[in-house]
Amino acid sequence: MSSDKKLTPISDLGEFGLIDRMTKGIKLKNKSSVKGVGDDAAVVNHNGYQTVITTDMLTEGIHFDLSYSPLKHLGYKAVVVNLSDILAMNAKPTQIVVSIAVSARTSVESLDELYAGIYEACNFYKVDLVGGDTTSSRSGLVISITAIGKAKPEDLIYRSGAKENDLICVTGDLGAAYMGLQLLIREKEVYKVNPNSQPDLSGFEHILERQLKPECPISIIDKLEKMNVRPTAMIDISDGLSSEVLHICQASEVGCVVHEDKLPIDESTIKFGNQIGVHSSIAALNGGEDYELLFTVPLSDFDTIKRYPEIKVIGHITKEDKGCSLVTGDGTYLPLDAQGFDHGANE
Amino acid sequence: MSSDKKLTPISDLGEFGLIDRMTKGIKLKNKSSVKGVGDDAAVVNHNGYQTVITTDMLTEGIHFDLSYSPLKHLGYKAVVVNLSDILAMNAKPTQIVVSIAVSARTSVESLDELYAGIYEACNFYKVDLVGGDTTSSRSGLVISITAIGKAKPEDLIYRSGAKENDLICVTGDLGAAYMGLQLLIREKEVYKVNPNSQPDLSGFEHILERQLKPECPISIIDKLEKMNVRPTAMIDISDGLSSEVLHICQASEVGCVVHEDKLPIDESTIKFGNQIGVHSSIAALNGGEDYELLFTVPLSDFDTIKRYPEIKVIGHITKEDKGCSLVTGDGTYLPLDAQGFDHGANE
Repeated sequence: MSSDKKLTPISDLGEFGLIDRMTKGIKLKNKSSVKGVGDDAAVVNHNGYQTVITTDMLTEGIHFDLSYSPLKHLGYKAVVVNLSDILAMNAKPTQIVVSIAVSARTSVESLDELYAGIYEACNFYKVDLVGGDTTSSRSGLVISITAIGKAKPEDLIYRSGAKENDLICVTGDLGAAYMGLQLLIREKEVYKVNPNSQPDLSGFEHILERQLKPECPISIIDKLEKMNVRPTAMIDISDGLSSEVLHICQASEVGCVVHEDKLPIDESTIKFGNQIGVHSSIAALNGGEDYELLFTVPLSDFDTIKRYPEIKVIGHITKEDKGCSLVTGDGTYLPLDAQGFDHGANE
Repeated sequence: MSSDKKLTPISDLGEFGLIDRMTKGIKLKNKSSVKGVGDDAAVVNHNGYQTVITTDMLTEGIHFDLSYSPLKHLGYKAVVVNLSDILAMNAKPTQIVVSIAVSARTSVESLDELYAGIYEACNFYKVDLVGGDTTSSRSGLVISITAIGKAKPEDLIYRSGAKENDLICVTGDLGAAYMGLQLLIREKEVYKVNPNSQPDLSGFEHILERQLKPECPISIIDKLEKMNVRPTAMIDISDGLSSEVLHICQASEVGCVVHEDKLPIDESTIKFGNQIGVHSSIAALNGGEDYELLFTVPLSDFDTIKRYPEIKVIGHITKEDKGCSLVTGDGTYLPLDAQGFDHGANE
């Protein structure tokens, strides 16, 4: 949004005017969306399927900084972080409900931007926005989204099914979102010192996009089914790989070995890490916000899995008493531990 | 909580310690709660039923003032306001997911209190807490709850089914929660001037309870079924009776006549209104936070309805072109309009 345009305070629209403006373009895409926005509650119908539900809250100053998070991207990301949890159950996301608290200084135009991002994500991932709550906040913006998904009962995958000798797999690449955030923080500091400086972000589009407008690997759910591979345990990578591997090991009562040199890391993540003196493996293990999937599969699926370049095998599951280890590039075994928690966890 | 006890900062527990503490006592009560807290998402199974979903967000300084809202009551109320929306669909609440953002100054003990209230409501209303998100807020406390309910497809009642000549009915009494809030505000002002003053709240227990620890009329759903009365339209009264009646009329494309002298108002609401110079009818029409049900039934159900003292007939539905009117005690017709919006609306 250009800053010389006169913006409309939310109070000009009134309560129901605001809701109308934010929801008038909704077209329900899923047959299971029986009733959307406009009554006391949404109605979804997943007969024969399990209904999967998750929720995530993002708060200003904690999860995002409006000085470098474009609102449209923020809306998009707020949806994706929820859908990621639905995928991690091996379920398909179908609906979301969105609650937003805005401060008195929020303009209608900025809410438009935020919702544009929310709707863009809904369209891309084919989910329906079916309800929500719009309210006030004494200070910053708060976005709370609950996502609903469906799965056949027999398809659901929990964190607790990993078995000894299973392979540990991840989708996509790791650590980029963390590096993207460090880049944004650095550029903000530069801007503070010299507001006329033009940031040179070329070569770092990937890490910026992973931070500002992440995607979750929705196609992997169908792909696994077609490959006839059924993961034994699955989780999404929101808090950093280490933390998620440990969650699976704890829930499954197993140990693991993860190989540092097998972590999928993009070149730009390594390059920016070198600039700021942060090893890209640390970002991959503890950075968080990757929204990729981590899962375990039986060893017998290795020949199938290795044909898919978007899936990387990074280690294997051991007996519980072996503990959880990281093997570094030079062959040293280190205990795998979760670090670097920033801002809360999804239960 | 006594103020001389040393309180524990949230940071002492760590992320997962906090989640464990808040969720360790959970016992799932509903057969449809397939998976609760502890994986990427909750799983509910309502095969043969429709799944009903709603969400509501409460923010500090807007929806509640911690100086007079005991945290336990606040937790209880945050659940009830959501369940009320499920009831308004003629559905039975079955699960909730709870997202909470806390500031650095929030103590573990205060979160314990908040969750004690949440669990008390879950137990009373027989709903399962199946997931959530615990995160940080830069300033005040934010509570966002999504409730899920079930209903047979044919039992769902929307706002849009009211027909000419239908009777307009409400449960419980109206305006008390508004008066309770005014009482709390008054006592806070008195306390500011003289911290040693002891508030005399006797005779006003009802209006205080309606504000601080409201209940929603869950038994009415079964009762209507047993009475063999099927409302044609239904909504919960969260923003004041006028606003809700107008919602039904708009959605149903009808008009209405509401009789002021038939509004169910408790004696203590009238008495306190007289003290502060606010007519109790104004509180009933525009006060909000009553969490009672407003519904319309065919005229032929009058003989059945009148046998239930907890249900009051307050008016009737007309053709749309007659508009929406309030008949005052002296027989004057006034246009019914929604006023006094405080803090947001549920979509």
